[in-house]
Amino acid sequence: MPLEIIADAREMRVRMEDLRRDGRKIVFVPTMGYLHQGHVSLLEEGRRRGDVLVLSIFVNPTQFGPSEDLSKYPRDMDGDLAKARGAGTDFAFTPHASTFYPPGYQTWVQVRELSQGLCGDKRPGHFDGVASVVAKLFHVVNPHAAIFGEKDFQQLAVIKRMVKDLDFDIEIVGMPTVREADGLAMSSRNAYLSPEERQQALTLSRALERAQALVKAGERDAGKLLEAARAEIASAPDARIDYLELRDPDSLHLVPTLSGPTLFAMAVFVGKTRLIDNRVLRV
Amino acid sequence: MPLEIIADAREMRVRMEDLRRDGRKIVFVPTMGYLHQGHVSLLEEGRRRGDVLVLSIFVNPTQFGPSEDLSKYPRDMDGDLAKARGAGTDFAFTPHASTFYPPGYQTWVQVRELSQGLCGDKRPGHFDGVASVVAKLFHVVNPHAAIFGEKDFQQLAVIKRMVKDLDFDIEIVGMPTVREADGLAMSSRNAYLSPEERQQALTLSRALERAQALVKAGERDAGKLLEAARAEIASAPDARIDYLELRDPDSLHLVPTLSGPTLFAMAVFVGKTRLIDNRVLRV
Repeated sequence: MPLEIIADAREMRVRMEDLRRDGRKIVFVPTMGYLHQGHVSLLEEGRRRGDVLVLSIFVNPTQFGPSEDLSKYPRDMDGDLAKARGAGTDFAFTPHASTFYPPGYQTWVQVRELSQGLCGDKRPGHFDGVASVVAKLFHVVNPHAAIFGEKDFQQLAVIKRMVKDLDFDIEIVGMPTVREADGLAMSSRNAYLSPEERQQALTLSRALERAQALVKAGERDAGKLLEAARAEIASAPDARIDYLELRDPDSLHLVPTLSGPTLFAMAVFVGKTRLIDNRVLRV
Repeated sequence: MPLEIIADAREMRVRMEDLRRDGRKIVFVPTMGYLHQGHVSLLEEGRRRGDVLVLSIFVNPTQFGPSEDLSKYPRDMDGDLAKARGAGTDFAFTPHASTFYPPGYQTWVQVRELSQGLCGDKRPGHFDGVASVVAKLFHVVNPHAAIFGEKDFQQLAVIKRMVKDLDFDIEIVGMPTVREADGLAMSSRNAYLSPEERQQALTLSRALERAQALVKAGERDAGKLLEAARAEIASAPDARIDYLELRDPDSLHLVPTLSGPTLFAMAVFVGKTRLIDNRVLRV
């Protein structure tokens, strides 16, 4: 089946409804485009899990803050569609912001507790934008399952909670972060990095590795683990920590002393580029 | 088809999905129970519009404020089911609050502008509770159409906007307020009124009639219309105005001078009972 590209929400909805009525299992991968191997791994998982594989490409304006990089966000529709075809995608839903958000738009989905802390504190309103656009996309595509990357760990937690709380009938699947050979987590934002910054960006994954090694060696004190990670990141002259935190992977509550699997999550500016990474530390 | 009563959301969802796949048109009337002729008129309209008529009965705790009458809210499940049968209802969905809101529930749908003013200002959080529970019910029942009364005018506006903004594929139908022979708008809360209060409650509909008469006679000034309505209500010794406002029926913005159809909306305490009523004045 060749890739079909649909920008109109109504058309998309009708096509999905027909396929659903025929008993086909629809799996959905929502993205902001500029696809990399991480996205492709989501599409491949989607291909394995369903009959109809749907990708959305939509740089959602409502999840960018006023000081953030919406207009500069990297875009490559042709490249994205080529990668989507390569991964066996059946539909690409590519709405336009001007029609996807009708005049007078004013409805927001808020996952109140999980949207706090971590990126939620640093990017006010970000997760309201994410939850709302995902709710909209879910209503248009109406998939049986949707796949998200664990690199955006808090986003995945917010969406899982929204689906449970609002009774969406959609299975949410999280997939492991895909990394470059040297450990850098794949991200569309890596495109912003100069070669030197690219090198310095390795301190994020190294800090996570160092924390896991310390835990393996018996360290349980969050303060000590954060200190070691901070030191690792400080070795990069252009890196500036936005946050560095140890949290419970389910509740996202802060963890002072590790006693089970614990999320180590970070956001670090390397030059002007804000990168995030995380790892669930195994005790 | 006899009335089927289902309390479990998952069971409800499966039944609805099967009917939908068979091409049946599902029409939904969400209520808080204690059905009166107003609700019955919604069910009758639903019966005309669809193949499968679904009623929900759920006294939603999240739309009551801390000082409001959740525990005292009138209930009569047997009477409700008898009325539902009489109106040809196929399914009654009767979830329990303890399971319908899972532990850790924290997701809210907010229709930000239309939830302000009128009842929104007087009942903080009320419309977040309404929008959220309606989103949940819509996800479980997944109807083609849903029917609401115009007596809760702001609620209807909030839900229409939510449906449009979040791309729900559901037709929202508003139905005229049903009144007692003497003009009192039907409401479950009328059950709270003593015979004397019941008589005084007539000032609400009389005030609306008076305003319409004045508009018909040429009055366009909101202040004058409100003054006349206030005087009418003041004739009832136990009536206390909560709000009295003229607003645009679409945007719900305040209207100082009438130039087209204008919503006259009011909330009035009669004794301890808060009643609402409204009328779109025709110019």
